[in-house]
Amino acid sequence: MKQIEAGKKLLYEEVADRIGGMIEKGTYRPGERIPSIRDLSRQMRVSINTVMQAYAHLENVGMVEARPQSGYYVRSRLLEPEARPANKKATEDLAPNPVTLGDIPFQVMRNISNISFVPLGGGIPNPDLLPIDKLNRMLATESRRFRIQSVSYSTASGTKRLRTQIAKRSLDSGCALSPEDIVITSGCVEAVMLALQAICRPGDTVAIGSPVYYTFLNSIQWIGLKVLEIPSTPREGMNLEVLSYAIRHNPVHACIIISNFNNPLGSLMPDEKKQELVALLAKHNIPLIEDDVYGDLAFGPVRPTAVKAYDKKGLVLLCSSFSKTLAPGYRVGWIVPGRFQEKVVRLKALLNIATASPTQLAIAEFLTNGGYDHHLRTIRRIYARQVAQVRDAVGRHFPRGTRVTRPEGGFVLWVEMPEEVDAFRLYEEALRKGISIAPGTIFTTTGDKFSNCIRLNAAFWSERIEQALETLGGMAEAIT
Amino acid sequence: MKQIEAGKKLLYEEVADRIGGMIEKGTYRPGERIPSIRDLSRQMRVSINTVMQAYAHLENVGMVEARPQSGYYVRSRLLEPEARPANKKATEDLAPNPVTLGDIPFQVMRNISNISFVPLGGGIPNPDLLPIDKLNRMLATESRRFRIQSVSYSTASGTKRLRTQIAKRSLDSGCALSPEDIVITSGCVEAVMLALQAICRPGDTVAIGSPVYYTFLNSIQWIGLKVLEIPSTPREGMNLEVLSYAIRHNPVHACIIISNFNNPLGSLMPDEKKQELVALLAKHNIPLIEDDVYGDLAFGPVRPTAVKAYDKKGLVLLCSSFSKTLAPGYRVGWIVPGRFQEKVVRLKALLNIATASPTQLAIAEFLTNGGYDHHLRTIRRIYARQVAQVRDAVGRHFPRGTRVTRPEGGFVLWVEMPEEVDAFRLYEEALRKGISIAPGTIFTTTGDKFSNCIRLNAAFWSERIEQALETLGGMAEAIT
Repeated sequence: MKQIEAGKKLLYEEVADRIGGMIEKGTYRPGERIPSIRDLSRQMRVSINTVMQAYAHLENVGMVEARPQSGYYVRSRLLEPEARPANKKATEDLAPNPVTLGDIPFQVMRNISNISFVPLGGGIPNPDLLPIDKLNRMLATESRRFRIQSVSYSTASGTKRLRTQIAKRSLDSGCALSPEDIVITSGCVEAVMLALQAICRPGDTVAIGSPVYYTFLNSIQWIGLKVLEIPSTPREGMNLEVLSYAIRHNPVHACIIISNFNNPLGSLMPDEKKQELVALLAKHNIPLIEDDVYGDLAFGPVRPTAVKAYDKKGLVLLCSSFSKTLAPGYRVGWIVPGRFQEKVVRLKALLNIATASPTQLAIAEFLTNGGYDHHLRTIRRIYARQVAQVRDAVGRHFPRGTRVTRPEGGFVLWVEMPEEVDAFRLYEEALRKGISIAPGTIFTTTGDKFSNCIRLNAAFWSERIEQALETLGGMAEAIT
Repeated sequence: MKQIEAGKKLLYEEVADRIGGMIEKGTYRPGERIPSIRDLSRQMRVSINTVMQAYAHLENVGMVEARPQSGYYVRSRLLEPEARPANKKATEDLAPNPVTLGDIPFQVMRNISNISFVPLGGGIPNPDLLPIDKLNRMLATESRRFRIQSVSYSTASGTKRLRTQIAKRSLDSGCALSPEDIVITSGCVEAVMLALQAICRPGDTVAIGSPVYYTFLNSIQWIGLKVLEIPSTPREGMNLEVLSYAIRHNPVHACIIISNFNNPLGSLMPDEKKQELVALLAKHNIPLIEDDVYGDLAFGPVRPTAVKAYDKKGLVLLCSSFSKTLAPGYRVGWIVPGRFQEKVVRLKALLNIATASPTQLAIAEFLTNGGYDHHLRTIRRIYARQVAQVRDAVGRHFPRGTRVTRPEGGFVLWVEMPEEVDAFRLYEEALRKGISIAPGTIFTTTGDKFSNCIRLNAAFWSERIEQALETLGGMAEAIT
């Protein structure tokens, strides 16, 4: 290889130009890995530092992206979805809607959780990334060790051992909980249901980021509440200006947020916005239900803060679970109900007495001696890679003008196709080809807002997934 | 021993007189075992048949009682509680009441499930009678065998294997279910909650046997329903004449019944009454929620029929669980929702997605290869004996005039003390002595109806229990 001469340009710029040119000519295609810093340094006989400068430059101009523990990749030229509804007179159609879901969302939910389809629809983690054998071992040892406890009701709040472990880990998300602050639930969905039930009376209004995680719409309907959809952006999540406007013009009795790696948007609310949100709601004495179930799946080295960390008044009810990281089928989640503690414990007791004991014991043991942090580091890296792979595949196969979110954690992608694409029709046609996707229509109470959007589950990556995405892209192209 | 001469009396009558006299003189005291048939035959040199006739005679006149697999015992002279409210113009105060439980029932529920007390309060089974080690082994083997399934969500309806086993066993209760008829829930309480939610809207009225199992009052309050308490007798359960009157004079949207070994009354509704109940409700198109959680604990050789067995219109929602026979802490129950199938499945999915998988798998295996029938035979015999022992101890230690139910299954006793005894005060004083009992006041929405009654859990028997009952009796005596 010809040695690089330092000319007018700085050396790192020369390196960046060389690689940038190769990308532009298609030598390296979107989603492909470019040479490692070490390799390029050797190949081009420049210092490690120079290559690092060059790659930082390419990253700054948006041509490549670093993926943790993996290297640099050609960034697809996909744009992220705009925060459309928020930008155009977002407050205009802001009104509480009663939730009256017909049969369709339930059929969709059933189909997207049907594992015989290519699983691009449901929000389930990849079983290959769950520590099944270790959990099974712990299920066996712990139920033997705590013989009578394993078959007996735990207290309504849950097994102390598990609550203690969750409290210890709460420092990671900026909280400093004690075991007494925590109530174990049968998953995060139940935690949110208990929170809503503790706070609201039928007819009350709940403000929630839109697109709305469809299960929340179900919970809201169950209790007979109204929903006030607050537009959200893929970068920062819920638009707090609109929320503030909504609170001033409507009676709002509760707010729900998935602040970290939102489902479906992938948004991560910045810390200062989290503080602003807490302050805004505290001013109006409105409880906030925070679902932080994806928080442990940050792609970066640091887990984001929970909104709860800024809560001074006990108004934030933090909900989470181990369903995305350890075992969805164990149905072990938790809630920190703040000032609603007593009420939530009672509701839990009368809903189903307590959460199953053996699975609580197994997860407590995993958190104590199972290497949960190591496990998280492993799966975060893999999910980061797969999310990028699915994203790139969408870039390659979907119609021109398609936009995709670029989440920094979790494993769902929100895809905004050209306006002409009917996402529900795409969902139906995809099902016939054995592929499940989640159509945008189930993420809102207003029928057409996300009619050209779909949510993709990027928890899986394989030849079969890539082919499915190619098929989907082709179908989307055909129905534009 | 002097040989018996046949005189005017028949030989078996002579034998009966001899033993009856010994009972009357206190040689054999209430609760004590009289000689076995074989022993007495040898001792009195009469045939086995003669002794059998004599004992049958003593049983007929109410002096002794047979306890399955155990022998004949002197029957205590305790009377059973009268069906008081039903007999005196029961329909007079018949009106739907909104349920607005204060703090007390919750404190009571918390205390009676606190295992540090002598456990005469809660409705929990005896852990010594649960097949803990076998279940633990099955939990381990099944989660290894169904590796991915064990950590994954089951369908909302539950694991097919478990539903199949429950369907097979349904013949025992006179039903002929298919796996598709069944939805697995996290215990029976959740099943009843789902049933109520599927049937009722806030403000609706639910008819229910009184005294009411307090957890149902909680469920009814959760959904914002009204309760119409139908007087019940310790023999036959809900008074169907009163129910019929209530339905004609009130809008009744659902009915709840524990027909087999009712909690707290112990009543067993006769089959013809069950048919009558189904016909009455079908005529008015009112759904019936049947809780059959004690049905498997019949003291006799045959398990009673479920009301569901007579259901032709899909109006009966049969609910049950394995919490009384296998493992309360596993939280595995089920519901047969009849015509509300689709709705219940949806509600289950949005409540907590599904019931935990590993415990479902373990119980399915226990039903398949664990010898559930053998296990039931064993614990039925023991509970029959213990219920009699607790009953006899009440007879020995409680104030004169105390009446106790004589259930033919399950393990709870309803104790009606003289009217002057304040059961709630007894509950409070007992707690201070480390004994938990369930005061009658928590079994009704009208404060004073059962103010002299308590429910005792007879799942346990030991020196400590006997002493606790003596203490209780003394305290009751002191506060009359």
